[in-house]
Amino acid sequence: MNILAISGSLRRASINSALLRATRRLAPNDIAIHLCNGLGELPLFNPDLESDPPPAVQSFRAQVAAADALLIASPEYAHGLTGVIKNALDWLVSYEPFAFKAVAVLNASPRAHHADDALREVLRTMNATLVESASITVPLLGSSLDEDGMVSSASVAGALRDCLASLYDTVVLQQANHLASFPLR
Amino acid sequence: MNILAISGSLRRASINSALLRATRRLAPNDIAIHLCNGLGELPLFNPDLESDPPPAVQSFRAQVAAADALLIASPEYAHGLTGVIKNALDWLVSYEPFAFKAVAVLNASPRAHHADDALREVLRTMNATLVESASITVPLLGSSLDEDGMVSSASVAGALRDCLASLYDTVVLQQANHLASFPLR
Repeated sequence: MNILAISGSLRRASINSALLRATRRLAPNDIAIHLCNGLGELPLFNPDLESDPPPAVQSFRAQVAAADALLIASPEYAHGLTGVIKNALDWLVSYEPFAFKAVAVLNASPRAHHADDALREVLRTMNATLVESASITVPLLGSSLDEDGMVSSASVAGALRDCLASLYDTVVLQQANHLASFPLR
Repeated sequence: MNILAISGSLRRASINSALLRATRRLAPNDIAIHLCNGLGELPLFNPDLESDPPPAVQSFRAQVAAADALLIASPEYAHGLTGVIKNALDWLVSYEPFAFKAVAVLNASPRAHHADDALREVLRTMNATLVESASITVPLLGSSLDEDGMVSSASVAGALRDCLASLYDTVVLQQANHLASFPLR
């Protein structure tokens, strides 16, 4: 199973990016996590460019299409989504392969809820399959954990492993239902 | 008085951009409205670049600093702010001259409230002076008005003139209070 991990922060020391790298290290052998690193190269969304999207958009969309599920971790800026993550999602609104894609969202800031709420509302509006059981608030507050610390923390690593297990189960079920609905013979 | 008008859409036929152009045409002689057109050239926000911001960011910030007030009109994409407007605001979060700036928001979509609510929440969090009396939903629904139509529509033109009058009064009061608080001699 292929999971595309998307961080909504371009900051080098981003805790959200570290969380996704830690999750990749914790993934079992049957889950491959690819870290998406092209969000900073996307142009700002312009509906007039949808008919002939720039190469960076085509590359991002191809990564999304190739993934069985998405895992998003994004900070809150001024009680809102980051422009970075919303811009990336704006390029996916009319991109047909995104619809019904399994998506889990990680919230690394237990005291923040505006961006987490907004991200869920946007994803539901875009017809994502929001996997609630895999969409968790990670208990990082005040812990100052870096990537290594997350991997070696029993509570954080356990939460991330549970997240991946839920996402895995959802995708398996989703693909089984798809096969059941559209039998090949 | 100088007002910087900011559209959250890069679409050429954007109704929000048309609304701001119509507002400029309706402005009285003592209000100069400058249409901000650099949002599409801004890089995606990266906190690591704050100490030495790219030229497009410096130019945008200088336009904001030079304005007595901001007038924002931005569409709703997938029940959220556009990445374009949020990215622009992300570059202003730590920009000191933005704080306490008078800001009015126009909502061109009477049936949409998610982006309008989110924009107000973000602006309040950024310590803008959100001018409620000038922040209106413009009655455009189903009217298919273009810029000329907005200018010649009594209800739309009246609403936009009232918006400018409220914004003007707020800025005058704000500057008078500032002088009262910080007398020059």
